[in-house]
Amino acid sequence: MNKKLKFAVVGCGTQGSTYAGLIEAGKIPSMELVALCDIDSSKREKLAELYPDKKIFSDYKELIDSGLVEAIITTVPHYLHPEIAMYAIGKGVHVLNEKPAGVYTKQVKELNAFASQHSEVTYAIMFNQRNNPLYQRIKKIVEDGEIGSIRRTNWIITTWYRPDAYYQQSEWRATWGAEGGGVLVNQAPHQLDLIQWIAGVPKTVYAKTSNGFMRDIPVENEVTAILDYGNGATGVFITATHDILGTDRLEIFGDKGKIIVENSNKVTVKRLYKSEQEINEGIVATGTSFEFPDNKEVHEMIEEEVFTTESAWGGQHEGVLENFARHILFDEPLLAPGIEGINGVRLANAIHLSSWLGEEVSIENFDDELYLKLLNERITAEGKYSTKN
Amino acid sequence: MNKKLKFAVVGCGTQGSTYAGLIEAGKIPSMELVALCDIDSSKREKLAELYPDKKIFSDYKELIDSGLVEAIITTVPHYLHPEIAMYAIGKGVHVLNEKPAGVYTKQVKELNAFASQHSEVTYAIMFNQRNNPLYQRIKKIVEDGEIGSIRRTNWIITTWYRPDAYYQQSEWRATWGAEGGGVLVNQAPHQLDLIQWIAGVPKTVYAKTSNGFMRDIPVENEVTAILDYGNGATGVFITATHDILGTDRLEIFGDKGKIIVENSNKVTVKRLYKSEQEINEGIVATGTSFEFPDNKEVHEMIEEEVFTTESAWGGQHEGVLENFARHILFDEPLLAPGIEGINGVRLANAIHLSSWLGEEVSIENFDDELYLKLLNERITAEGKYSTKN
Repeated sequence: MNKKLKFAVVGCGTQGSTYAGLIEAGKIPSMELVALCDIDSSKREKLAELYPDKKIFSDYKELIDSGLVEAIITTVPHYLHPEIAMYAIGKGVHVLNEKPAGVYTKQVKELNAFASQHSEVTYAIMFNQRNNPLYQRIKKIVEDGEIGSIRRTNWIITTWYRPDAYYQQSEWRATWGAEGGGVLVNQAPHQLDLIQWIAGVPKTVYAKTSNGFMRDIPVENEVTAILDYGNGATGVFITATHDILGTDRLEIFGDKGKIIVENSNKVTVKRLYKSEQEINEGIVATGTSFEFPDNKEVHEMIEEEVFTTESAWGGQHEGVLENFARHILFDEPLLAPGIEGINGVRLANAIHLSSWLGEEVSIENFDDELYLKLLNERITAEGKYSTKN
Repeated sequence: MNKKLKFAVVGCGTQGSTYAGLIEAGKIPSMELVALCDIDSSKREKLAELYPDKKIFSDYKELIDSGLVEAIITTVPHYLHPEIAMYAIGKGVHVLNEKPAGVYTKQVKELNAFASQHSEVTYAIMFNQRNNPLYQRIKKIVEDGEIGSIRRTNWIITTWYRPDAYYQQSEWRATWGAEGGGVLVNQAPHQLDLIQWIAGVPKTVYAKTSNGFMRDIPVENEVTAILDYGNGATGVFITATHDILGTDRLEIFGDKGKIIVENSNKVTVKRLYKSEQEINEGIVATGTSFEFPDNKEVHEMIEEEVFTTESAWGGQHEGVLENFARHILFDEPLLAPGIEGINGVRLANAIHLSSWLGEEVSIENFDDELYLKLLNERITAEGKYSTKN
């Protein structure tokens, strides 16, 4: 019989319930669901009906202290991820943090520092898109140097359509105090992680955001950011929730080629037969007529490959859960180490901060305290939730 | 016999010679080439051989004062466009200015003010792409409100590939003192005009530019700019000369639809059956499941039209020449009034200025004097040409 990880879901809203269902349906072969936790008594009643043989907790500390579970996932409001993760890690319970790792860099840095001190405990994050074969293949193409050094990245990801009716479903949704932002915190963390996972962490960012653009919400749902990688390479990141005709187009351009991803399922890779630097050196020009090296025409210098995958956006959670379990049980390489969760949070924070200040901000030396101070000003102005520290 | 406009070409380099050739070949039915002008004696000798029956001048003032011509085109270095145009207008000679209208807003404003005082003289500009049926159709779709109010524009236009060998052909090319910049002044003025012609003039811009990115030139050849239209709408404009795999993709997104132009020859228009605001109001949401108004599925709310045109990029000059002549002779509506040339120059200047200052700058209240001061600093540092005033 297979060894299985004794697992609990902390927070049984939509996402937590989905994970519980996947495990119970046997979709995660190396996991066994042994307990669930929610602070809401009506939810607990339903859970008790649905899972009569599982232990149901109201307090995550009791669950972790119970000795019943080896690992948990934190499907709770974003702000609480670090607190619960640290409690579990401190007790030797492995943690799969739901994304984002937290809301502001200060708390995520504390979590990362704490996790680093407890390296015997596995701390991972639910970046399910890292398990998407399409993005894995793109990452490998870039890592293997097939398109050379990156000169520009460009992602328009405005397929996160959310109407007012979506925002009106819950009091906490799209608030500074309970979510800590809008599209950057709730919908786009996948892409904020992927772009950095594939193309590296930018040095600075300048951004414009609009709060409640065409929506009755106090947080940002329209974002345009310029990334600066510090080596001449730049990037643009655009996201929004008001575009029902949403665009999803990622372009990564390098010395030796270009990758274009449309709708997260069609990839065009253009590879140059040698680097643009070498081609440039070999060109003879007459006006705007160019003779290219090796007597080639432009099209002869380019090899184009197109591949498509089934759109797996929103899926892939099973793979991350199974990988997490097999890492703990069988020491398989971990796909999404939790400490990398800081990248997406920091980029989201930096985009906020830049737009609030109206100036470019450093990602490399991000001002965690200033960000938290300005976030708390917004929470105070909102008047619904307590400030953070 | 048709009435013809007596026309002269001032400046007979590559572009000027092309126009002379077009007229002589009968491609511009309402124009007659009567004179040519160049300061270079060897060029004049060749012109005399090629056009034995035309009058050849070395000084544009003598040409204009000769009484031989009704109109001229200014195919001379960019900085000289305003000076020559004003001289001609002052003498009652119609002017078709080569683009850009000038290099810095201060001189173009002077030219515009002067031209406005002489409205009996036609002052036009060679925005040949305004005569491109593809962009005319897109302008009409936007003007007619078919995609509603614009929410975002996005143009990646990096097909302006120029190798070092191109830049090395002439001393003046890609210098601050003789050209006044790089890709923004020489290659991208078409797009800088078109985006404003179609989508309006932004209120502010923030930009990053790189000078001599992968090229041995002192001016910008890599540009990323965020446009702010002042009403919540934003835009991104990206151009570069080092991308041999260049992308040309324009997206205009509005309340009622989206236009996507690929490679300046394929257009996809998506029209919503009613505005996004109205759709948003009618949605019922359960989690991230949305019931749309009128029981429609998303695809049922969208009508998609795709059309292609033959790529006419770089052509269309004949049409502008003929339109200019017919406007003067027969009072036909003028396609590209000269005073609109300020828009492209100002946006290019504003992108420069923003990148030099590292901050967002106003287009509405553009600081002409500050721009000229900082441009002159660059001309002085370059040490090859005199400063401007």
